[in-house]
Amino acid sequence: MKKIEIAFQGEKGAYSELAARRYFKSTRLQLIPQKTFADVFHAIAKRKVDCGIVPVENTLNGGIREVFNLLDEQSVFVTGEIKLRISHMLLGVRGAKISGIKRVYSHPQALLQCRKFIHRAKLSQAEYYDTAGAAKFVAELGDPSVAAIAGLSAAEDYGLRILKKHIESDGKNFTRFLVVTRESYVPGDADKTTVIFSVKSQPGALHKSLSVFAIRDIDLLSIDSIPNVGRPWEYKFFVDFRGGVFGEAQSKALEHLREICPHVKLIGSYKEGRTEY
Amino acid sequence: MKKIEIAFQGEKGAYSELAARRYFKSTRLQLIPQKTFADVFHAIAKRKVDCGIVPVENTLNGGIREVFNLLDEQSVFVTGEIKLRISHMLLGVRGAKISGIKRVYSHPQALLQCRKFIHRAKLSQAEYYDTAGAAKFVAELGDPSVAAIAGLSAAEDYGLRILKKHIESDGKNFTRFLVVTRESYVPGDADKTTVIFSVKSQPGALHKSLSVFAIRDIDLLSIDSIPNVGRPWEYKFFVDFRGGVFGEAQSKALEHLREICPHVKLIGSYKEGRTEY
Repeated sequence: MKKIEIAFQGEKGAYSELAARRYFKSTRLQLIPQKTFADVFHAIAKRKVDCGIVPVENTLNGGIREVFNLLDEQSVFVTGEIKLRISHMLLGVRGAKISGIKRVYSHPQALLQCRKFIHRAKLSQAEYYDTAGAAKFVAELGDPSVAAIAGLSAAEDYGLRILKKHIESDGKNFTRFLVVTRESYVPGDADKTTVIFSVKSQPGALHKSLSVFAIRDIDLLSIDSIPNVGRPWEYKFFVDFRGGVFGEAQSKALEHLREICPHVKLIGSYKEGRTEY
Repeated sequence: MKKIEIAFQGEKGAYSELAARRYFKSTRLQLIPQKTFADVFHAIAKRKVDCGIVPVENTLNGGIREVFNLLDEQSVFVTGEIKLRISHMLLGVRGAKISGIKRVYSHPQALLQCRKFIHRAKLSQAEYYDTAGAAKFVAELGDPSVAAIAGLSAAEDYGLRILKKHIESDGKNFTRFLVVTRESYVPGDADKTTVIFSVKSQPGALHKSLSVFAIRDIDLLSIDSIPNVGRPWEYKFFVDFRGGVFGEAQSKALEHLREICPHVKLIGSYKEGRTEY
C-alpha cells in the first residue's frame, strides 16, 4: 500500500510534522521536509506530494501572512484543520545539566515565547531559522553548555535529552494548521469555511462586506488583514466563518460577497479541527 | 539648548533612526538605540527619553503585532506619524566587489524582500536580528566576500561601500512609524485616529463595532486583528480611521464604540504622516 506523502516546512521533528501525524492518525505516512512555505506549495502544485500541512495562526503571535498569501496566489484548496498545543522544551546533549547551560538556540518566535525562562536562567540566546533545525545543530555541536528550545519530536529525532518541559511563558500556546491539496474537495461534514477577499477603496467598504455574514447570523471565527503587495496601504482580508460552503446561508453569503468585492477566493470548507495536546 | 532624546529599536543606522531624523527635521536630536521594542516603551515610561519612534506597519509584511500589543498595554500616547520608503542596499567592506560576494547578512524580513536579487546572484544568506546590526558585523568581519543588506545610514555609520542600490524585489516598500510619548496630547491639526478594541464573543460583534464608523461615513484606513494572549482564538482589533478625535462624528463614534465593546483604548490622534523618500 502506497504511503500518503505530505510536505511540511522545516526540519524533521518540526511541529508541522507532529501536526500531520496527529491529523492523519496513520502509520502509512511519508513526511517530506521543505525549506520554505513556498516550497511546500510548489511540491503540492507539481504533484511531488499528495498534500501539505502548514501553520496559519498561533494564539500568541497571530496569523502567518506568508501562508495567507500563498493560499491566495496558488491553485490549492484547504480540506482539513488541526489545532496543536505547542509545548517548548529545553533540550541538551548527553551529559548536559540544566545548571550548566549557558546558551540556547531556537526560532525567534520560540525564544520570544520562552523569554521569562531565558531571563531567569540568565541564558544568552541565538536565533535559528527553525526549532527542529536548532535541535539538530545542538546535537551536532555536542557541547553540554549549549541547549535548544524545540518540541518533543525534535528531542526524539536528534537523540537529545529533555532538560526541562513546558518552558513557555504562557501555557495557552496553540497553533492552527491547515491541510492543503490540489483538488477542490469539500468533506460532507464541513462546518467551517475560509475565504480571502479585497474591498473597494471607499468608506464603509469593509463594514459592507461583513454585512453579508451579519445579516445571515453567520459567526465570524477570525479575520486578518494582509497588505496588498504593490498597492501600498490597501488590504485583503482572510476570514474564517462558521458553516460549510454548501449551507444555504453560507452559499448565499459568498454569492453576495462576490457581488460587492473586486476579489473573492474560496480557500476551503472543512471540518473544524480538534485540539491535540 | 537641550537635545530631544528619542529611543528607537535597533543599532545605530537602523531605519527607525532615519525615520526619527526625517520626522523631527532638527539637528538637536539624540537618538538612543534600544535592544527590543519593549525596551523602547520602558525608556519612555521611565522618563529616560522624551519620546520614542517605532514601526507599526510595512506595505509588504503588514502590521507589527508586538508593537500593537505594547501600545495597548503601556501608558503611552501616539502624537505623530511618518511613512518612509525602505530602500535596501548591498553593502560591503573596502575592496569588496559585487562579483566577489558569496554570503549576505541581514534581518529575515529584508532577506525576504530581496530574495529575487539573492537568488539571481546565487548568494548564501544568513539571518541577523537587525539590518544595521548586520552592517556593523560585516564591517567588523572585514571579509570582502561577505556583504550586508541595510539602508543608506547604516553604510555611513559603519563606513561600508554601496555595492548596489535598490535591490528589493518590490519597489513599493514603505514602513509607517509612530511617535510615542508619555503625555496624552492631540495636535490641533490631527486628522487621523488610532484605537484598539476587543469585541464580545458573539455573531456579528465585529460588524456591529464597525457600524459606529460606517453610519457616520468615517473612513477606516486600516484594521488588524491581534490575538488576545491567554484567551485562545479571541482577538482585539487595531484600527486607524480618518479624522481627529475632537471631530463631532469621531468623538460620537468613540463614545458609541465604548458602549458596545468590553475594551476600548484610544492610542492617539495625530496628523497623518507624509511619505519620505
